[in-house]
Amino acid sequence: MIDQIRIETNKKKEIIPFTKQIENILEKVNRKEGVCTIFVRHTTAAISVGEVGEGTDQDFLEVMERIIPDIHFRHAHDPSHAWSHMASSLVGQSLSVPFQNKKLLLGNWQEVFLMEFDGPRERTVIISVHE
Amino acid sequence: MIDQIRIETNKKKEIIPFTKQIENILEKVNRKEGVCTIFVRHTTAAISVGEVGEGTDQDFLEVMERIIPDIHFRHAHDPSHAWSHMASSLVGQSLSVPFQNKKLLLGNWQEVFLMEFDGPRERTVIISVHE
Amino acid sequence: MIDQIRIETNKKKEIIPFTKQIENILEKVNRKEGVCTIFVRHTTAAISVGEVGEGTDQDFLEVMERIIPDIHFRHAHDPSHAWSHMASSLVGQSLSVPFQNKKLLLGNWQEVFLMEFDGPRERTVIISVHE
Repeated sequence: MIDQIRIETNKKKEIIPFTKQIENILEKVNRKEGVCTIFVRHTTAAISVGEVGEGTDQDFLEVMERIIPDIHFRHAHDPSHAWSHMASSLVGQSLSVPFQNKKLLLGNWQEVFLMEFDGPRERTVIISVHE
Repeated sequence: MIDQIRIETNKKKEIIPFTKQIENILEKVNRKEGVCTIFVRHTTAAISVGEVGEGTDQDFLEVMERIIPDIHFRHAHDPSHAWSHMASSLVGQSLSVPFQNKKLLLGNWQEVFLMEFDGPRERTVIISVHE
Repeated sequence: MIDQIRIETNKKKEIIPFTKQIENILEKVNRKEGVCTIFVRHTTAAISVGEVGEGTDQDFLEVMERIIPDIHFRHAHDPSHAWSHMASSLVGQSLSVPFQNKKLLLGNWQEVFLMEFDGPRERTVIISVHE
């Protein structure tokens, strides 16, 4: 089963958890268990899982700023755009999480989140569920 | 089919290969081939695949130390904890590997490994197998 | 269904898009939709998705050069080899992308690409398709 989620981002760079929206889709799935693949269809946003909140999201954005160096990008578009491509491909744009009884098998502190690196925009995330 | 593996870690930071434990689970699977999804249910540990041994594990831990910068973390817990969140989400907490005839289709030098960033602890890894 | 793609690389470090070769395999798949798992069986190459072209590939290689620090690697082989292990495990060696009607559900600017970090070589990529 393939479905999609729309996420409106509000800032240039932002971390947006959306575990709840994924589980709303799992509500409609008949299979008792399986794997949920989460894929973002953009080149300036990424998907990851981890702790969000208590400042961790700002920490993550600052760490990405420091990790991707300030090189002279060759990319024809504006340099911040090139930076967003690098950050997105490094974090990753696909994530697979097992589920059971309509819940993702996340740990207590884990959330699935979108990393916006070139907002604000409307982002499309594909949710694919298989046995 | 969903199963799980418990991994006891012994150090603050450590790389622990566990391909063998995954293939013990594949022994019990009837399907001839498919994909095995490996997911760690924690926010201060990660899963990856690569060469382990001959010093590569220590190299990897040192590289992570250098990559994640020494910023003033906002996260309410202790700074080393925040560092572990960043390292874990960057490396990733999910991995999908094809299998055939009860073996992961790894290359000669590839091992699946856990990266412990806040041990020693007992870690739970979910193994989900689908066609 | 499990198949494989051979990719000849020509340089020491290189980015090679191969979305087309994956979709050639999807042509032979009967399922209307599902997930395609792409896995590289090597420890000195990686798989990612993102924008390729207009200089972005050279940008990405330079960013990786800057990200992985010039430490004294313990790994018994030559240091550039150790560097390639670190780069590969950090970017990742597995990628799952949903598909529908024989096409990967990529965004307009997304390409699946191999990152060669120790070429030139012949690389094997496993393609596994499941419902």
